[in-house]
Formats: sequence, C-alpha cells, structure tokens
Amino acid sequence: MRILAFESTAVSASVALMEDEKLVGEFFINTKLTHSRTLMPMAASLLQASGVSLQDIDYFAVAHGPGSFTGVRIGVATVKGLAAPNDVPCCPVSSLLSMAYNLQNMEGVVCAVMDARCHQVYNALFRVHDGVITRLCEDRAIEINQLAEECRPFGNELILVGDGASLCYHDPAGAFRDMGARLTAENVRFQRASSVAAAARTQIAAGDVCSPAALAPLYLRLPQAERELKARKAAQKAAQ
Amino acid sequence: MRILAFESTAVSASVALMEDEKLVGEFFINTKLTHSRTLMPMAASLLQASGVSLQDIDYFAVAHGPGSFTGVRIGVATVKGLAAPNDVPCCPVSSLLSMAYNLQNMEGVVCAVMDARCHQVYNALFRVHDGVITRLCEDRAIEINQLAEECRPFGNELILVGDGASLCYHDPAGAFRDMGARLTAENVRFQRASSVAAAARTQIAAGDVCSPAALAPLYLRLPQAERELKARKAAQKAAQ
Repeated sequence: MRILAFESTAVSASVALMEDEKLVGEFFINTKLTHSRTLMPMAASLLQASGVSLQDIDYFAVAHGPGSFTGVRIGVATVKGLAAPNDVPCCPVSSLLSMAYNLQNMEGVVCAVMDARCHQVYNALFRVHDGVITRLCEDRAIEINQLAEECRPFGNELILVGDGASLCYHDPAGAFRDMGARLTAENVRFQRASSVAAAARTQIAAGDVCSPAALAPLYLRLPQAERELKARKAAQKAAQ
Repeated sequence: MRILAFESTAVSASVALMEDEKLVGEFFINTKLTHSRTLMPMAASLLQASGVSLQDIDYFAVAHGPGSFTGVRIGVATVKGLAAPNDVPCCPVSSLLSMAYNLQNMEGVVCAVMDARCHQVYNALFRVHDGVITRLCEDRAIEINQLAEECRPFGNELILVGDGASLCYHDPAGAFRDMGARLTAENVRFQRASSVAAAARTQIAAGDVCSPAALAPLYLRLPQAERELKARKAAQKAAQ
C-alpha cells in the first residue's frame, strides 16, 4: 500500500511517500516561500527520486487542518487535484494528531500547539505510550493561559510540539516551564508529511477515507474575512 | 551560517540545509536506487525549493563513514566536488554520531548500529541527557554478541537506532530484548542529513573542519577487495 502525503498547514511544507510501514522518502522545507509555488515541485522531485509514478499511489493523505487558512486550502486543493482523475481515495488527517506521530518514540503527554493568532493556539493533547497514540481531547482553538491550566496536572510528562510550542514554552507567565514541560528538538518540532502518512495508515485501516470530491478543510474558526463581515453585520444591526 | 549536509552511508540518502539552529529543509529517500543517481538531483531540488544557491553555503557537511564503502565514497566525492571550486570549508561527521542527533529529544543511552556484514555491526554508544550528546566509546566494528554483552548494564535505558537496530533487536539470542532495549520509530530510525548538519554545528564551533582537499572517508575496515587481496597474498606466501 503506497500513501503520498501532503502537509502545508503552517509555514513549513512537506511531502512524503510511505510504502506499508516503510518511509520511502520525504521532502521537507521550512521557509517563507508560498506553498502554492513549492508543494507540487517537491512532490514531483520526491516521486522521481523514489522511482514511483502518480499512478502507483493507492491513497492520498493530507493534513486538512487546523492551521493557516491559505496553507490548509493549498494542501487540500493539491490533493483533490491529484486524486480526482483516477478517483483515488483520500485520507484527511488532523495536523495536530499528525504531530503526535513525530514523537511516537517517546513516553508522555504530547501537547500539539500551533499559533492561531488572536492570543489563541490550536491545540490537542495525546497520550503516547509504547508507540500507541491516544487522543485526550478534540482539536480546539484555546487561549494559552487556559491551556496551561489544563496541562498543569501532567507536569514534566508534558512534551510541547508544533510551531506554537516555543510560544507556550517562552510565554511570559512561565506556566509551562514551571510545570517542567519539555520542548521538542528542532528535527521533530514541526508538522511533517511523514507523520501525516503514519497517522493515515491507522485511519485507512479503520476505513476513515473519503472520495476526492468529499475531501474538505477542517477549520476550527471562521476565516478572518468572515469574522469581520459577521462583526460588521452585527454592528449594523445594533445601530438600526 | 548556512550548512549543506549530505548523508549516503547506507541504503537511505539525504540532503539537508540548516541556517543557524533552523532546519530550512531536508530531502530524504530510502530506496534501492544508486546514490550516484539520486544525491545531486536531491540537492538541486532542495536548494531550489529553499530559494538558496550553492554560493550561499558557508560549510559543507558529510557523513564520511563508517558505512557502505560505495555510499561513503559517493557522499565524500560529491562534497569534495561542490566545495572545491570556492574552497568552502568541509565538516566530516561520523555517521554513528549523527544518528544520536536523531534522538536528541530523548533521555538514555543511544546504541547506533549499522549492518557491517560478516556477522559484525558498526557501532558507537552515546549518552543523551538534556539535549546534550556525550560519546561513550569510539566508532568500531564489533560482533553483535559482544555488543550485547557491553550494553547489558544499560538495561532499558538503551535505545537502538540505525539500519542495524532491527538486526540487533531481533537477533535470535534475544539479548537486547531481554535487557529491555527500545527500538526507535521509523521516522527517526535511519541516518539523516539533518542530524549530520546538527552534529556539524557542534564540530564547526569547535574548529573541527578541513579543506575540500583534506576531506577523506572514514573506513573502520579494509574494503572487501583489499581484504581478499590480503588473504590471497598471505595464502600464496604460506604456500611458498
């Protein structure tokens, strides 16, 4: 079973090819370049370096959110485009769940966090034990203070991962440092397509796949434009 | 400071770009394709995806062994070729040391092992504590039984990494499983150019660099052809 996985929910972007339990290849970059420019050439290079063609792919996996609205859309749109011609089944994976797979090696509670702006982080918590990942809460947008309060009982079992990890760890209130939380090393800090593929394997085994047409982004909040429109409408209504 | 790092000492191959403490990008494949065909196109794709040119590289790093003789030569020769025109300084990194950097996150004793054939593994041991890696022994070629005996005192602190990790873990004698050693997950099991770059940063800070001309492979054993020639010569001498 060959899975081609895409990850573009934050500043970093990556593509990975997995064949059964083997990671055949991964192309990862973490620059400010637009994903719409980098993602497809990266996929093409990866397939070429691996000697595999698009026709050999059994499943497309994609981190469908939460994350940057534009990043999520680019990833989902790319996979829709590649999967549609031959109606290849798709597997949407939570970007937060995929990060827990970066740390499959470790023991503890993974706190996956992405900077969601507006004083919030996208977050979910996972217990990692003996290579098995158990979800402890749903993906949500939450304030850093509130997250720290929730995490306190885990103490030094807590492992921070994601592009919001450093934000939490270095938060002026110091709550995460005080409880003894650990910050992951650079090589496993950011979301990775290899982890999206690893998470997808479990989901595919459970039948959690969809058609390219049904594949959709996972937004935890309305996009900024819609939030502002809503606020303007509410203000207009109040003024009437 | 920009480091472009190459790793091709075993079946997998990878190229990574690091800028100060940030991993800008990495291209990894683990196929049976020849490194001489894949390594340079991977480097070109990585530089292009990162918007960086060869002229922007301050140091070239390479895993110079131990490992497959052909793989080591391809990596070293590639870096010599890229570094020579502008005499860019080079940093040779032990492939075994670099593997310890895959696990910089963890606490314990890293047992880095590569299949060296002839009932041997290339091995070195490292203590990883608080993100700091301390070498416990030199790189060597050693028999699996003897390695197991040496590792026994570390018990379940022992973490196996490298393409020989599964070989040790599943060794019929069962010594590693008996002592509670752990096998690393697929995403950090194999040598990675990102880890070569991370190890190179420490070496560069200590002044451990050389000219492209001085860069040389690290062989722990004579190549098979030389071993056989030596044996033939000894047999001829004995027959005289």
